[in-house]
Amino acid sequence: MKIDILTLFPEMFQSVFNESIVKRAVDSNLVEINIHNIRDYSLDPHHKVDDTPYGGGEGMVLMCQPIFDLVKTLRTKDSYVILLTPDGVCYQQKIAYQLATYKHLIIICGHYEGFDERIRTICDLELSIGDYILTGGELASMVIVDSIVRLVPGVIKEESHLKESFNNNLLDYPQYTKPRVYEGLSVPEVLLSGDHKKIKEYREQESLKRTKERRPDLLEE
Amino acid sequence: MKIDILTLFPEMFQSVFNESIVKRAVDSNLVEINIHNIRDYSLDPHHKVDDTPYGGGEGMVLMCQPIFDLVKTLRTKDSYVILLTPDGVCYQQKIAYQLATYKHLIIICGHYEGFDERIRTICDLELSIGDYILTGGELASMVIVDSIVRLVPGVIKEESHLKESFNNNLLDYPQYTKPRVYEGLSVPEVLLSGDHKKIKEYREQESLKRTKERRPDLLEE
Repeated sequence: MKIDILTLFPEMFQSVFNESIVKRAVDSNLVEINIHNIRDYSLDPHHKVDDTPYGGGEGMVLMCQPIFDLVKTLRTKDSYVILLTPDGVCYQQKIAYQLATYKHLIIICGHYEGFDERIRTICDLELSIGDYILTGGELASMVIVDSIVRLVPGVIKEESHLKESFNNNLLDYPQYTKPRVYEGLSVPEVLLSGDHKKIKEYREQESLKRTKERRPDLLEE
Repeated sequence: MKIDILTLFPEMFQSVFNESIVKRAVDSNLVEINIHNIRDYSLDPHHKVDDTPYGGGEGMVLMCQPIFDLVKTLRTKDSYVILLTPDGVCYQQKIAYQLATYKHLIIICGHYEGFDERIRTICDLELSIGDYILTGGELASMVIVDSIVRLVPGVIKEESHLKESFNNNLLDYPQYTKPRVYEGLSVPEVLLSGDHKKIKEYREQESLKRTKERRPDLLEE
């Protein structure tokens, strides 16, 4: 899988993608990630990438030209172009599974002050990671890349996905590790019983109970 | 405002918080951010921070001791402790506004393989940034810090917040900048009219129309 990210802040990505699962996936050649500075593609003599909005108002608006040109350069028949914007489709684990099957993603990081509306016309999907405002799409793109990369076959053990939250529309069950008692708080007896059938039942019950309490909407789906 | 972040991957934060609005807020002494390595607080001779789950199963579970001890060290009467976990309350702009008024946030980054259930007992709020699985809470904590810091008075111009998505439960209106025509796509005439009343009306209509089309749920709130 190849992922191209278009951003005004390429330096932001360095320490994030040099750690953890994304680094492991890149080092194993399972994923290739390229960060492109939108500014490098500006045809303006001063490498200008934004300008004032037509009709007036606060803030600067990202211009079409550098982004249109960069997408044209990168796009192949396998490409899927994603624009990150707060008014996009709400990102969910189901979408992560779908995107993890694609060969080539081009991800455009929007900026909080706005982007030219016409940029939407060259995108296949507009995504939002949640109902909150970020300075730009950079963190959103990292979130999406992290969640996708770990689903690419070979990156982490398949079994690890089975018990995760949002699989089968259930939240995860409670986990405990040593010691048995910590500051007066004990591990539930059943987990110490060695009775695998009972432990499985307990976990299924707790998973369902937690989902009912915290996210009844997941059960309605 | 002071923000303490507890993580197993402190290096991940460097390039993100050295850019953009977070850096500006820190440089202006409006916000202080400290990244703490959970591992440094382990009393285990090998600095172990996780162990196998009671009851069996895949993955390693974050232990209580280093996190309990670190929170005890950092906590004052002004502290508000947040745990990042996929089964937490869904983060929203409303919560960002609320958290931006606090003096001291302690943010604990969970890890996708799980954490000891007893860690929840020392937290004031469990948060999730969305219904998807990340490798750990690190990116989630960056998202939360970015969205909060930009709301801290003095960090960005107050007026910039007024027209943002999710204010008044509306999505933002379309923005355009130069040129008037790009690859055959034109800027709407009204924005070139210079008629401020008409432009205001157009933007309000478009904002409402977009919200109806894309996020009718916001209008129902």
